[in-house]
Amino acid sequence: MQGAYYYGDKTFKIGECRPTAPGDDEVRLDVAFCGVCGTDVHIYHGVMDKRIGPPQIIGHEASAVVSEIGSAVENVKVGDRVSIRPLRFGAQHPFDKGNPHIGKHLQFIGIDSPGAFQQSWTVPGYTCHHLPETLSLELGALIEPLAVACHDVRRGRVRSGERVLVMGGGPIGVLIAFVLREKGASVMVSEVNEARLQMLKKWNFETVNPITENLVDRVSAFTKGAMVDAVFEVSGSAAAAKSMTDLLCARGRIIMVAIHGNGPQPIDLFKFFWSELELIGARLYEEEDYEEAIALADAGNIPLQELITSIRSLSEIQGVFEEIDDNPDGLKYLINCQE
Amino acid sequence: MQGAYYYGDKTFKIGECRPTAPGDDEVRLDVAFCGVCGTDVHIYHGVMDKRIGPPQIIGHEASAVVSEIGSAVENVKVGDRVSIRPLRFGAQHPFDKGNPHIGKHLQFIGIDSPGAFQQSWTVPGYTCHHLPETLSLELGALIEPLAVACHDVRRGRVRSGERVLVMGGGPIGVLIAFVLREKGASVMVSEVNEARLQMLKKWNFETVNPITENLVDRVSAFTKGAMVDAVFEVSGSAAAAKSMTDLLCARGRIIMVAIHGNGPQPIDLFKFFWSELELIGARLYEEEDYEEAIALADAGNIPLQELITSIRSLSEIQGVFEEIDDNPDGLKYLINCQE
Repeated sequence: MQGAYYYGDKTFKIGECRPTAPGDDEVRLDVAFCGVCGTDVHIYHGVMDKRIGPPQIIGHEASAVVSEIGSAVENVKVGDRVSIRPLRFGAQHPFDKGNPHIGKHLQFIGIDSPGAFQQSWTVPGYTCHHLPETLSLELGALIEPLAVACHDVRRGRVRSGERVLVMGGGPIGVLIAFVLREKGASVMVSEVNEARLQMLKKWNFETVNPITENLVDRVSAFTKGAMVDAVFEVSGSAAAAKSMTDLLCARGRIIMVAIHGNGPQPIDLFKFFWSELELIGARLYEEEDYEEAIALADAGNIPLQELITSIRSLSEIQGVFEEIDDNPDGLKYLINCQE
Repeated sequence: MQGAYYYGDKTFKIGECRPTAPGDDEVRLDVAFCGVCGTDVHIYHGVMDKRIGPPQIIGHEASAVVSEIGSAVENVKVGDRVSIRPLRFGAQHPFDKGNPHIGKHLQFIGIDSPGAFQQSWTVPGYTCHHLPETLSLELGALIEPLAVACHDVRRGRVRSGERVLVMGGGPIGVLIAFVLREKGASVMVSEVNEARLQMLKKWNFETVNPITENLVDRVSAFTKGAMVDAVFEVSGSAAAAKSMTDLLCARGRIIMVAIHGNGPQPIDLFKFFWSELELIGARLYEEEDYEEAIALADAGNIPLQELITSIRSLSEIQGVFEEIDDNPDGLKYLINCQE
């Protein structure tokens, strides 16, 4: 059995990984496909080494086939095709208020413990969600990011007929745009990369390049002067944080999906007061988001296949991460963990 | 008939005001009492002269008796005792999305048009809310700020059993604290003024002085480590804006009541993402907030009488504003507009 170990300093090495027998509540999986997340690229850049503790196997956007189950596992059986919700819930803390997915003791599988870039992976049984027979294992590896999008849209309370701006047209931004369309919203996507803009146009999204165009004017024209009901901030850029409060109608909502990790940003609190705006944080997903994502993927209205830039074998993982660094046009790279 | 004209440069002058016959949809009121709002003090300081256009009569926290009604007015009759919701709704704008109280064309009566610091005042009939016989006209002048508090608490979706921090123990902060208590919340108030802290303690609120105490530690102790479910930011201070994101549990809500008018403030957006926090703007009030405020005032559980620092005659208005400037311990000054 093989696994891709991250060694720090932008380096993966393929090595042996010994299959781990599942505990009573665990399952052992033959990983099928695992997508490369923006977080994995951050890890590759070395900024999370302290949390990761290299050498370590990362990866958390996985589909798999169940190969062995613990004695207490009841939700899946050997041979089931599943998508994995990579959250290990720790002891409840009073802070959590019944929200374990953002709990104090949450551990993220693939960051805080070994991930899916390996042939055999052992995880808690409750992390497994069944994939319908009609959904491929390739698309099963897109359930995790699609569940993020479902969660973000749910947190944003978007209703049919609303007009929405998504800031940032990377994989998550694109998936949010598609989920919003499924909800009946009219969607504009703000993105600076020309290749991504072309893809978004091909999918019939309204687009705007905030560097070459006046964002406020474009949003105003898109909404006939009303401005948008919701802004999804997915870009993580300081410019987006600065402008997001200028783009909303009365009681407009900003959904904060991006990780603004470089310290506090200047935010115009007066606008929140004046027009009763809302800023809503959204992180990860809950069980129902996975179920919704699987149903949406299976329904087939979202062209998920077109989001896949490339599918490569586990042995090629080093080259894949190097290519992602060199190819800002790409969207989603999948690793075939059995090849 | 007399009125108090604001002339700019911290100056009021008592002058004649001619009663204005009501239009078809209007009522003429004999103003009973009108409270002095923080906004009136801002106006007195000259910072809103451009919007006010002195000389002008200001004042908007009024109780009154109806003295004359227009031909189309049906909701009140001559002799009715009322509290006034001082909002003139302009034409709807697409931006408003059915929220006229924060609409593009909203005009605030007492700022954008003549206010209540006069004996006779003519306003749209729909602005009048009946006061029960059991509620005095003095307390009727507190309905406007109490409706602000009701609106803020409603926007904050506070539920019974929640623990809440109110930042700022001025009149609005105190009223929010009392409304929160009526909803079944446990309330801590953060305030720097020692006299106000003593009043808050007398009313059995948990208190904290964020200058002499560690706010995070006190909130943690108050909530047994969980941190609060909601923070009402009523202080308008940069220090409060900086610390507010450190005080909440998972999915905690910040209700932005204060006017942060000095430009953007540094806000830690990462915390919104990480713990799914929410920032919710709250401004003014809607019809139902007035009805709730009147019901709460009439129920008598909130010691509104104790919030009244002083009641003075219209002719004393100049001295009242000077005293407010010199007395940071005071809460609510009322002007008796018939004396």
